[in-house]
Amino acid sequence: MTSPGTLILLRHGQSLTNAEGRFTGWADVPLTPHGEQQAARAAELLTRDGLVPDLVHTSVLRRSIRTADIVLAELDRDWVPVHRTWRLNERQYGALTGRVKRDVRGEVGPALYQAWRRSLTTAPAPLTADELALLRADPRYAGLAGGGLPAVESLAGVIARVTPYWADVLATQLRTGRTVLVVAHGNALRALVAVLDRLTGREVEHLNIPTAAPLLYGFDSELHPTVRGGRYLEPDAARAAAEAVAAEGHD
Amino acid sequence: MTSPGTLILLRHGQSLTNAEGRFTGWADVPLTPHGEQQAARAAELLTRDGLVPDLVHTSVLRRSIRTADIVLAELDRDWVPVHRTWRLNERQYGALTGRVKRDVRGEVGPALYQAWRRSLTTAPAPLTADELALLRADPRYAGLAGGGLPAVESLAGVIARVTPYWADVLATQLRTGRTVLVVAHGNALRALVAVLDRLTGREVEHLNIPTAAPLLYGFDSELHPTVRGGRYLEPDAARAAAEAVAAEGHD
Repeated sequence: MTSPGTLILLRHGQSLTNAEGRFTGWADVPLTPHGEQQAARAAELLTRDGLVPDLVHTSVLRRSIRTADIVLAELDRDWVPVHRTWRLNERQYGALTGRVKRDVRGEVGPALYQAWRRSLTTAPAPLTADELALLRADPRYAGLAGGGLPAVESLAGVIARVTPYWADVLATQLRTGRTVLVVAHGNALRALVAVLDRLTGREVEHLNIPTAAPLLYGFDSELHPTVRGGRYLEPDAARAAAEAVAAEGHD
Repeated sequence: MTSPGTLILLRHGQSLTNAEGRFTGWADVPLTPHGEQQAARAAELLTRDGLVPDLVHTSVLRRSIRTADIVLAELDRDWVPVHRTWRLNERQYGALTGRVKRDVRGEVGPALYQAWRRSLTTAPAPLTADELALLRADPRYAGLAGGGLPAVESLAGVIARVTPYWADVLATQLRTGRTVLVVAHGNALRALVAVLDRLTGREVEHLNIPTAAPLLYGFDSELHPTVRGGRYLEPDAARAAAEAVAAEGHD
């Protein structure tokens, strides 16, 4: 029997709205030049540890797509198959999309702000009907036009849509011994880690994923993680960056 | 019944070895900055004519992959599914790979030079055993390791490997009414056009595909081209560029 492969999780590099301290969600913003450099640096870390993806998955948002393209080009593996799916999109932030995090925290106070950002089941207000209509007209979401398009999501909602992608696609590929790279977003990766590590609600609330820091998961024969929480290639840098994510929107 | 979709053929922008006047084949060289600009310009032409790909296909060589990435980014369609296949690779040029075209023409004379470049069935010498071993070790060709890896190809060989991709993949997608973009190489596209237009050997010899000039095919209900030879979005520029391709290696 083939031993399961390795899963590499990577949050995209800094985007324009990350740099501005805004909620981004499904808004499709580009990387900053710093974000592109972060992607190249992530590829250096993979090279250093001899990690070479056989298959890549991204969201349908350009910040993850471009991060994956840069990583593959730096690895001299432009040709690796890449699958792009809305199931790996960032959480749909509804009415918060595009808002400055610090402003929102000032308006609603720290408790609700934190619940909106981090709790498992709390969601802010949905998109307006007009905003939702725009999204429905976007051909990348044509498959969801029948009513599956979320106007807002809690993290539980993200977990619900990431779970089938894990079970049907990622787990299947890992079982064949492949090295699988997932380039996605803060909350899509929190959701995926929640599934992998069977996190409690409280554990999920305290989980923060830094940008462009490769996080590795190995698996036993039943596809349970060999190390809970995985292993960052640069643990100290990743811890500091995760603390910075946790503090976003604070003064 | 859905009417068949539109096929857009696009040869990658100028590569480093194009700029140097060399045979490239399966050597995996990057675009030049000029080649990147050509890709962006091709996207402008598509936008001008309201052509939006639903699905994209490239070879496993970075000059076609990067051209497709640039086109999609310019079209604001980074998320479109892209499939990368060796069947759309440039012709395997064997011993000519990396050689300067003018030097080869000087050595072997214009008749053989022209036959190697343009005839349907003539092939130059194959790769050496060492060169072939290197290619066999390349994971992107792992699926061909059982003996399918060509040490050299005539254009007939390219047609033979492009034909199943046309029949099984491209034709199937076009039948569902999709707009399909193929970003590939001079000889892979000559082969595809030979299949689409049922070209004779003599017609194929005189066919030259310029870089980064979108070539459109529409189809009738039996998936025969509505216009033989397709339609370039900029016919005059494409004709001039095709003549320049025909003259390559001449002084």
